[in-house]
Amino acid sequence: MTKKGRVFSGARPTGRQHLGNYLGAIQNYVALQKEYDCIYCIVDVHALTTLETTRDIKNNTYEMALDWLAAGIDPRESIVFIQSHVPQVMELFTILSMVTPLGKLTDLPTFKEKVRMQPNNVNLGLVGYPVLMTADIVLYKADLVPVGIDQASHVEFARETVRSFNFRYNTSVLKEPDIKLTEVPKVIGTDGQQKMSKSLNNHIELALTPEETEKVVMTMVTDPARKRRSDPGNPDVCNVFSMHKVFSSPEEVAMINLECRRAGIGCVDCKKLFAKNLNAHLAPFRERRAALAQNPDDILDVLRDGERRARVIAEQTMAEVRDAIGLP
Amino acid sequence: MTKKGRVFSGARPTGRQHLGNYLGAIQNYVALQKEYDCIYCIVDVHALTTLETTRDIKNNTYEMALDWLAAGIDPRESIVFIQSHVPQVMELFTILSMVTPLGKLTDLPTFKEKVRMQPNNVNLGLVGYPVLMTADIVLYKADLVPVGIDQASHVEFARETVRSFNFRYNTSVLKEPDIKLTEVPKVIGTDGQQKMSKSLNNHIELALTPEETEKVVMTMVTDPARKRRSDPGNPDVCNVFSMHKVFSSPEEVAMINLECRRAGIGCVDCKKLFAKNLNAHLAPFRERRAALAQNPDDILDVLRDGERRARVIAEQTMAEVRDAIGLP
Ligand code: SF4
Ligand code: SF4
Repeated sequence: MTKKGRVFSGARPTGRQHLGNYLGAIQNYVALQKEYDCIYCIVDVHALTTLETTRDIKNNTYEMALDWLAAGIDPRESIVFIQSHVPQVMELFTILSMVTPLGKLTDLPTFKEKVRMQPNNVNLGLVGYPVLMTADIVLYKADLVPVGIDQASHVEFARETVRSFNFRYNTSVLKEPDIKLTEVPKVIGTDGQQKMSKSLNNHIELALTPEETEKVVMTMVTDPARKRRSDPGNPDVCNVFSMHKVFSSPEEVAMINLECRRAGIGCVDCKKLFAKNLNAHLAPFRERRAALAQNPDDILDVLRDGERRARVIAEQTMAEVRDAIGLP
Repeated sequence: MTKKGRVFSGARPTGRQHLGNYLGAIQNYVALQKEYDCIYCIVDVHALTTLETTRDIKNNTYEMALDWLAAGIDPRESIVFIQSHVPQVMELFTILSMVTPLGKLTDLPTFKEKVRMQPNNVNLGLVGYPVLMTADIVLYKADLVPVGIDQASHVEFARETVRSFNFRYNTSVLKEPDIKLTEVPKVIGTDGQQKMSKSLNNHIELALTPEETEKVVMTMVTDPARKRRSDPGNPDVCNVFSMHKVFSSPEEVAMINLECRRAGIGCVDCKKLFAKNLNAHLAPFRERRAALAQNPDDILDVLRDGERRARVIAEQTMAEVRDAIGLP
């Protein structure tokens, strides 16, 4: 079946994925495969711009790939690979850096934010980050990049860089990617406050056992005003309720919405129900994950196969780029 | 015969070489081959940081390679190749950029000078220039980099970057290059004022015919105080005399030094003598150049062979670098 175009998306190797990754990215990755040729890249080179240590980068990459595949990213349909395995991206990064004004990069709000976060490690790679991201996208001649509204500026940057290159060398070899605006739900962590993230340790890993899952769910912060079992609660300010809306049946959601408000259900039971439904939802995922984990070489094979297929596209693009510049 | 170590040097593809290139670099390149394993690289990627147009880059590369080989760089001894043909250098550049503070780069006097020269094209590649230069050197694990005193800071920068990388990843895979301090004679152009350079059009190309050479030599500015043939001249302020000291016999130099001061020789005859001696010196070079130019494919073969040999070293280094970082 002819698909509607090529999608590229990259994610840093953060290891075992959590509910935030699942609802915010992975589910969308899986869904896009039906209509698009998808390239999903684990961007280990990007990770070097900010990592204090790279001790876990290899393991984090494999764990993430495992989660992706178990969640339904199909390597027969999509290209799944590791960024550094196709070094042409760094070649294109270098070449694109020659057409990217330094001042434009240092003016980006994302750069300024990173400087605030790691003032002692403002390296050249950090300022070049958007250019490397551009290289990722255009090396594979992606038609579309799925991003939330707050990431749209990155794709806009890539479009401008492509125009600069094509103008400078009077060519049209690089393709301007389009933004595929995607609803990225904000998943709150177990603290009930901040975005779910591994670094805040407020996350729920997909690969936990059902028992571990329940244990973590029981730590979730609920309506802070509900101090005792007999106090009525307010589901509207409770992150457990938000999760029910994703993983529980409409009947259960309606029941909680009613009973919580009149202290008809306690938080312990409410969380147990959520844990049960989450575990049920993730059961097929966990089964596939366990099967895949039996043969680690299969994961490596998938990533090598993705590399081979990505390289074919990358080599073609770089041949065209070198030719457009007129390199010897 | 075992040599004393590995030398790396790169030069931008500036096309047909002139006397300034010859006396300032090429002669030294040729001489170093006796004692060192030499890698001579035509750095076309560096050229992209400043070039307005890349129209001539391919031709300039081949003309320069032709001059190098005709001048005595021996591709059976040395590795002669084109930078972009071994793209691993851009991979290493990207990785090294993650350990290079932006502020250190923007503080470099060479960067500030470039900003003054091309204020409208301060691109990311321009600021990353010293990092790409470092990648060139350390990718090939060079022991020594021959530079004049005014370029020594570039090698010092490379040494510091190597230390940053090795420290960051707790490794010793990258080698700190040593400076091989080289006397780089300042060759003045035909204007008698500025450094000989193609862009100032005050240069004398090596590959000119004897007739063309004499014609250019006749335009050389001499002692400006010597207005008439009957005026005595001062060889100490005359660039033609400086050239005699390189290309004429000690007897001729002594004669001019004497006769010029008492108007015993005119500038026309003095220049004719220089042109004659220069042509005699360059005759074997020009013969070899003409022979080489008969078979352009041979030059391409030399560059391809250099690429193959350079790649072997580059791939080994990059395997070690990826391993040291722990990339998947
Ligand atoms: S009963 Fe459920 S929805 Fe209500 S506050 Fe407790 S956990 Fe939240
Ligand atoms: S005679 Fe020769 S050395 Fe003297 S001023 Fe003329 S060119 Fe120079």
